[in-house]
Amino acid sequence: MNKHTNGIGRRSFLALGAAGSLAAVGDPTKVPGTPPSALGQRASHAALARVPLAGVVSYTPLQDLHGTITPADLHFERHHAGIPDIDPAEHRLIIHGLVDKSLQFTVEELKRFPAETRTCFIECSGNASEYFQSSPEVTPQLLRGLTSQSEWTGVRLKTLFAEVGVKPEARWFLAEGSDAAVLTRSIPIEKAWDDALVVYAQNGEPLRPAQGYPIRLLLPGWEGNTCVKWLRRMELSTEPFMTREETSKYTDTLADGSIRQFSFVLGPNSIITSPAYPEALNTGWMEIRGLAWSGRGKVALVEVSTDGMKTWQEAKLQGPVLSKAHTRFRMGWQWDGKATQIASRCIDETGAVQPTHAALKQKRGVGTGYHINTIVVWNVAADGRMTFKTENWS
Amino acid sequence: MNKHTNGIGRRSFLALGAAGSLAAVGDPTKVPGTPPSALGQRASHAALARVPLAGVVSYTPLQDLHGTITPADLHFERHHAGIPDIDPAEHRLIIHGLVDKSLQFTVEELKRFPAETRTCFIECSGNASEYFQSSPEVTPQLLRGLTSQSEWTGVRLKTLFAEVGVKPEARWFLAEGSDAAVLTRSIPIEKAWDDALVVYAQNGEPLRPAQGYPIRLLLPGWEGNTCVKWLRRMELSTEPFMTREETSKYTDTLADGSIRQFSFVLGPNSIITSPAYPEALNTGWMEIRGLAWSGRGKVALVEVSTDGMKTWQEAKLQGPVLSKAHTRFRMGWQWDGKATQIASRCIDETGAVQPTHAALKQKRGVGTGYHINTIVVWNVAADGRMTFKTENWS
Repeated sequence: MNKHTNGIGRRSFLALGAAGSLAAVGDPTKVPGTPPSALGQRASHAALARVPLAGVVSYTPLQDLHGTITPADLHFERHHAGIPDIDPAEHRLIIHGLVDKSLQFTVEELKRFPAETRTCFIECSGNASEYFQSSPEVTPQLLRGLTSQSEWTGVRLKTLFAEVGVKPEARWFLAEGSDAAVLTRSIPIEKAWDDALVVYAQNGEPLRPAQGYPIRLLLPGWEGNTCVKWLRRMELSTEPFMTREETSKYTDTLADGSIRQFSFVLGPNSIITSPAYPEALNTGWMEIRGLAWSGRGKVALVEVSTDGMKTWQEAKLQGPVLSKAHTRFRMGWQWDGKATQIASRCIDETGAVQPTHAALKQKRGVGTGYHINTIVVWNVAADGRMTFKTENWS
Repeated sequence: MNKHTNGIGRRSFLALGAAGSLAAVGDPTKVPGTPPSALGQRASHAALARVPLAGVVSYTPLQDLHGTITPADLHFERHHAGIPDIDPAEHRLIIHGLVDKSLQFTVEELKRFPAETRTCFIECSGNASEYFQSSPEVTPQLLRGLTSQSEWTGVRLKTLFAEVGVKPEARWFLAEGSDAAVLTRSIPIEKAWDDALVVYAQNGEPLRPAQGYPIRLLLPGWEGNTCVKWLRRMELSTEPFMTREETSKYTDTLADGSIRQFSFVLGPNSIITSPAYPEALNTGWMEIRGLAWSGRGKVALVEVSTDGMKTWQEAKLQGPVLSKAHTRFRMGWQWDGKATQIASRCIDETGAVQPTHAALKQKRGVGTGYHINTIVVWNVAADGRMTFKTENWS
């Protein structure tokens, strides 16, 4: 039988190394702790924050997060007219247009329908803004922080469409938010039959105001602005509505000068979140960690290069790998102290490969601002300092 | 082409029903919203809180949650001497005893090891306290709210044990917390080789102080007190240490008057979280929803009875169904307005079945206080009012 059961004393800690201070000032075993409370708090030593910018957007701190879930208060934001203050008791969702019977639903009525829960990401199509790519001193948060992942719960849109009875000639529907921008997007009806949801919960709790409280549209794998927040109206029609957000905005330039419209699906993407700027490396073993995702389905493979994209090795994917979901990848790496570059690339289950900057620029030409999913390359200097390998989009 | 793209006007809302107030005072589309921020807030209309009790425990509001994830600030708490205030820079984990080389690790060192992420529940073995089972007016929160689920990230304990080199004769290890209770439990070493983790992150973010910041032991499926919070020491030995928390506490009475010690694994369990007290039903269709879980593996089947346990029907399980994880179940039900009782029972992949109160009482006798996983029965009165079917443990 063992001779002591009362915790390790000061002497044994001192004998083992530098932890003597644990037994000195502030030994937590010598002071009664604080009691349970209604709501837990974060540790004062573990500050986390989004970076809000220009009054319209805030970025998730990818470099500070582990696993795949984004805490709800750190989910990125992109608003077109700020966050509305909505009384859920007054809120209605109306579905009309090419339907047998126009209906409106209260939030409580929506919650009575058969529910479904799904974990997936939402990414802004303006993620990976050109604006940040000219600076070597830029964090994962600013390079790719307009993507976040949650466990969402709501009702399948096809369930609601069955209630109103969609006419056979309907091919599109309009989704409209009740913010001051009255944001509207046209969505092909196939997405409703596939996997669209009207969600009222995120990570177990009710949606937060910044995420569309009381309800938002969720189109897994499609650009974030189509996941209309504060959803109040859907209108079925034969053709798209050609709203502002699909004509003057959210279209993609191509190299021949033409414009690609309705490019809903987000391509394969990834970023090494650690190590990354502003970290400084020591030589030896570490684990390269990052996130990969694709709006086209499951991540099939993530490859990591530690020699400036000359060779690639397969990273380990954290299961369960879910469709249209952030997938954590990890790979052991022993840094030898020489200057190099590290990068990751995502290949999804459809075979789509995350492109290099050069490849995407060749396809899209200059001035492209949406659907940028290029490989992120981090420079490692001989002194261990890390920086972003800047990209020139002009 | 559609004739209007600017949102639905007041007239069309009024034409469709009672939503005219949306266009009156407080129309959110007529007021600029609030800009993005560093941290999101909950809606003022969607209050959520744990119920703290007796200065030692707080209960997760199961009836207010959707899906399977528990937001970190709503994870249940059970502390033996409150929440310690720990400086992570000073914190060390020491592993010693029957090892080749005693080692201590800083938190940063632990984070350098290969990481693993896993979603599972933690449940207090004192969940389903007898105390609440004598009142018909009791919520799911108080009946089963000492279980919560998170996505945890940390290092496999077997990775750390490989570092120190566990001697072949080691059969148990002590886990010790750095709270003022210096809580200690003895754990069979097989759990280290199986799936034990030392975790530093929860739902993406650093562990919160109430959950063991900066590190806690995570033994998936085992009673919560073995998942030692604020973990600071592990000692390898040939035999258990017979600490207070495994001799005078956390043992189970049996009907013959003997005591069962080291009953680590949590049995199959479930609860209908909606409808439940204090809801009042209307006749017609609704969805019965709840959570099921087992410390023995995956939930294989959840059956729901709506006729006082005379007959059972299979509920739908929300995938992906993970091992040792909260699993959301749902089943449509049309209430006909007659008084009845509804209940759920969980069968796990090992074939273990959640017992009735009578069956468990017969096995354990009176006075049992831990590992209560009996079927929760809700009464539905003819007027729709719901109450808990009280159980007599004396």
